Amino acid sequence: MTSPALDVVGIGNAIVDVIAHADDAFLARQGLVKGTMTLIDERRAEALYAEMGPGIESSGGSAGNTMAGLASLGGRGAYVGKVRDDQLGAVFRHDITAIGVRFSTPAATSGPSTARCLILVTPDAQRTMNTYLGASVALGPEDIDEAEIAAAQVTYLEGYLFDPPHAKEAFRKAARAAHAAGRKVALTLSDPFCVERHRAEFRELLQNHVDLLFANEAEILSLFETESFAEAARQVRGMCEVAALTRSEKGSVVVAAHETHEIPAAKPEKLVDTTGAGDLYASGFLYGFTRGRDLAVCGRLGSLCAAEVISHFGARPEAPLARLAADAGLA
Amino acid sequence: MTSPALDVVGIGNAIVDVIAHADDAFLARQGLVKGTMTLIDERRAEALYAEMGPGIESSGGSAGNTMAGLASLGGRGAYVGKVRDDQLGAVFRHDITAIGVRFSTPAATSGPSTARCLILVTPDAQRTMNTYLGASVALGPEDIDEAEIAAAQVTYLEGYLFDPPHAKEAFRKAARAAHAAGRKVALTLSDPFCVERHRAEFRELLQNHVDLLFANEAEILSLFETESFAEAARQVRGMCEVAALTRSEKGSVVVAAHETHEIPAAKPEKLVDTTGAGDLYASGFLYGFTRGRDLAVCGRLGSLCAAEVISHFGARPEAPLARLAADAGLA
Repeated sequence: MTSPALDVVGIGNAIVDVIAHADDAFLARQGLVKGTMTLIDERRAEALYAEMGPGIESSGGSAGNTMAGLASLGGRGAYVGKVRDDQLGAVFRHDITAIGVRFSTPAATSGPSTARCLILVTPDAQRTMNTYLGASVALGPEDIDEAEIAAAQVTYLEGYLFDPPHAKEAFRKAARAAHAAGRKVALTLSDPFCVERHRAEFRELLQNHVDLLFANEAEILSLFETESFAEAARQVRGMCEVAALTRSEKGSVVVAAHETHEIPAAKPEKLVDTTGAGDLYASGFLYGFTRGRDLAVCGRLGSLCAAEVISHFGARPEAPLARLAADAGLA
Repeated sequence: MTSPALDVVGIGNAIVDVIAHADDAFLARQGLVKGTMTLIDERRAEALYAEMGPGIESSGGSAGNTMAGLASLGGRGAYVGKVRDDQLGAVFRHDITAIGVRFSTPAATSGPSTARCLILVTPDAQRTMNTYLGASVALGPEDIDEAEIAAAQVTYLEGYLFDPPHAKEAFRKAARAAHAAGRKVALTLSDPFCVERHRAEFRELLQNHVDLLFANEAEILSLFETESFAEAARQVRGMCEVAALTRSEKGSVVVAAHETHEIPAAKPEKLVDTTGAGDLYASGFLYGFTRGRDLAVCGRLGSLCAAEVISHFGARPEAPLARLAADAGLA
């Protein structure tokens, strides 16, 4: 087996975020559940956009954010996801390429426009997401390059991929290709409602196809239908090699066969917008993991990257993460 | 004369900003002069974009920013400017409408795409702008609604309007309509290179058609071809009713026929990105002016709004300016 040319290939829904301030009353009026992701159709996206305040646009997508963070740390990454050949698709392609991630999935030349996520940030810095999947539903197995998957130590898949109809096939093809090449497969559970929609499949995946799991507390509790974090952590151990379970300001717990690490959260300079916290935790963790660092160091790198991204609007890093990691003695 | 239904109508180039971090070496390699605005064509815009780092998109345009600030203060504003019927045009329309500004200029349905300004923010928080005028060149006198102009106390025009070929006619039509209705005409000089391109016309305008002038130090020095700020201030007095001259961290000087006010700069919470500082100064000043406040209070409102906008990425206010003004005892 040759030495991998890439650290991580991330596969996900390619999305441009539209981020605006909103108050709790606005969420209530719109029937939105704070902190979660809701799938919306184009008509609803337009209606909600018309009601929202002024926004800023920033490339997003869970795995896209994770790969951007990995690249900012100095990691070698590639991304697979589907945009349309429109202005927002060009923005997405520019941003992920400019930060140093390889992105060669061709844009759709017909069909729905590039996916958008309307993100409402409340004064408590929580984000509530409304995703119009748009062109990302066109991602399919034909977009998976098995040679690229084989060239990466880890293939990182977002649970959100189970929402569009064909992406699941792409997901399974990528996981097979990774394991056939002796590489690792990582999964993030993405969102508690996403777990609810796909619980049985996620459990089966976890049992049989996933080496590395990322989940936040709400997601792992939903996966195992328990209210006890300790119970969820007990159940996940042994189902996969490593599980990194994030708990917001309580930090994270990294669970492996014979070890458990409790990692404190890193304090952001200022808490502005929690969008991307989990995605960037995965960036840091995967960066450490693909360099063979201790799991505790992987977790601390995750906390560091999450703290940077929640200190400003938008789910991609603003400060060069490699410098922050070096300053923290974690490079 | 009926009481005006609007405080200000702003007319300008309708632009979406693409904002990215860059270092001084990047500016040097690209031959860019820090702190200024350069006009670029579509090919150059694409080439520069390809070299830039990842960005965020935010609605901009000098007069658009000023009107957004006015609305955030609680002022009644309208905006005139030309976008294309594309995704970025929809973003521009959404943002200015959502903050409460009337915007009824129809989008162009053919021709170049919505204007973009590629803004490079250096570590010193200075912004260097590269504008592709795109659809904004389609603005013409047919877009000026004389009834709307007559309904506003002040018609605010950006000097940048002298760059596209037809906008100047729109500018002159609007100024005539404003004066015919007994209203005021305000002008911002926009950029020192813009002043150099149009110096003779700007001087003639100032002498004969402008009641209220906004300019920063570099612009007013260029207008009068002097190196002395005192000399420039002396020359501008008498050419127009009021001139508000901004001097970055040195604050501003408001010059009128029989009074001069030195206004200190307001300190931003954190200096992040100076984009929009002059535009938001004009928001605050015009808000005070249209409420008949003392010129010194107008200047302090300007400083307050400028301080908010330079404390974050992007040229539109993030915090509700009405609340900041109330907190500062200026509402």
